[in-house]
Amino acid sequence: MSVGQLAVVGIGPGNREWITPEAASVLAHATDLVGYSTYLARVPPQDCQIRHSSDNRAELTRARQALSLAAKGRAVAVVSGGDPGVFAMAAAVFEAIETKSPVWDDVQVTIIPGITAMQAAAARIGAPLGHDFCAISLSDNLKPWAVIERRLAAAAEADFVVAIYNPASKARPDRIHDAFARLRQRRAGTTPVVFARAIGRKDERIEITTLAEADPSIADMATLVIVGSSETRLIARQAPALPYVYTPRSYGARR
Amino acid sequence: MSVGQLAVVGIGPGNREWITPEAASVLAHATDLVGYSTYLARVPPQDCQIRHSSDNRAELTRARQALSLAAKGRAVAVVSGGDPGVFAMAAAVFEAIETKSPVWDDVQVTIIPGITAMQAAAARIGAPLGHDFCAISLSDNLKPWAVIERRLAAAAEADFVVAIYNPASKARPDRIHDAFARLRQRRAGTTPVVFARAIGRKDERIEITTLAEADPSIADMATLVIVGSSETRLIARQAPALPYVYTPRSYGARR
Repeated sequence: MSVGQLAVVGIGPGNREWITPEAASVLAHATDLVGYSTYLARVPPQDCQIRHSSDNRAELTRARQALSLAAKGRAVAVVSGGDPGVFAMAAAVFEAIETKSPVWDDVQVTIIPGITAMQAAAARIGAPLGHDFCAISLSDNLKPWAVIERRLAAAAEADFVVAIYNPASKARPDRIHDAFARLRQRRAGTTPVVFARAIGRKDERIEITTLAEADPSIADMATLVIVGSSETRLIARQAPALPYVYTPRSYGARR
Repeated sequence: MSVGQLAVVGIGPGNREWITPEAASVLAHATDLVGYSTYLARVPPQDCQIRHSSDNRAELTRARQALSLAAKGRAVAVVSGGDPGVFAMAAAVFEAIETKSPVWDDVQVTIIPGITAMQAAAARIGAPLGHDFCAISLSDNLKPWAVIERRLAAAAEADFVVAIYNPASKARPDRIHDAFARLRQRRAGTTPVVFARAIGRKDERIEITTLAEADPSIADMATLVIVGSSETRLIARQAPALPYVYTPRSYGARR
């Protein structure tokens, strides 16, 4: 039996100009595409390629389906938004392999990196991630909220720039408010905050504000939130251009 | 006078298959390329395009040179390794703008994101960044070592996966040893550690080890180090394949 192949492919946040040649090539040569319907819709159609679309939440089921197809000798691409390695499909595939069906042992798994939301958001507004930063998902489907709180507190305490993924959902609208309350305890009200929604897509929207004035309820599941460090600052520009937001490479030079 | 344009372009860690179409297009249409000679050498030559190459350390000088060229109406691309927004050239450009020459006000600055080293390293070995993580540069040229220590301690305390950039240099060979000593105080000896060197280039080399057994002196400036969280784990594979390294999306499920 031929050895199957499974590639987990990052297609970035939505703009085709951010899909790497590697990702485009793997998608073009796959016999089967597996993924959330919204992401599959971003991949140009190909004759003879089978699409297996599923709901957004079914990551583990989707991973198992992809592995089973690959074990049958198909060349499978799991289509992931952003970078599959950053709060996306790659970890779900390895979870599936770990709780494994022995027939998956021979499947060759490759991960194809992509531009993730925080990079796209950062690029649009300047260089907010120009210094040490952390990335935290507020999704508490799979981890206790106490772990998230501990990480937000540590990040604020150690003055990291914080990129917040999955800031809100219908199931947990209050989490982002809790997170902001925690950050406000430890960081100045003047700290720059960016809400970057649907970057690279038609409905892209960016709001630059401060920690004191931010209204976290504007963040939905398509929003990436960046909260600056004590060093993150704005450079004003002539309207209607938004200011640049950036974190310098040096630390403490202004004090 | 025509308005100049300055794009800070991320070309990824070295493999051309990771250069986005957006980056390739901006590089092809620039009149001038500015950058560290090693990065410029990765960009295909173009007739009539002027190359301004410089030493690796001269980020601010290079940024000012690029802004001055753009202010004269040139279409300038600053070529950056990885993602320009992550420990690379974008922040240096905004630092230059902030301490500004007024003639730079009209320069349109755009940042073109790219695959950064931690994404490339993660993709090669599995999904170590599959859960909350932070990125820390050990370069203390521009920030006090005490700040780095505080961040390493906070990251370990809050159980983030840690991606370490700029782990070593001739000027500060001991820093990575100090960093490991600090992480070992707070995290189990069995924690997976990855040294990923020159990913995507000919001399790519990956070592997967543990926090107890890691020899930090193998990390040079081309190495990206990933230190797992308490949840990061290996999935064994048949030799000579390296094990997969991944951090599951769930937290605490194993305890």
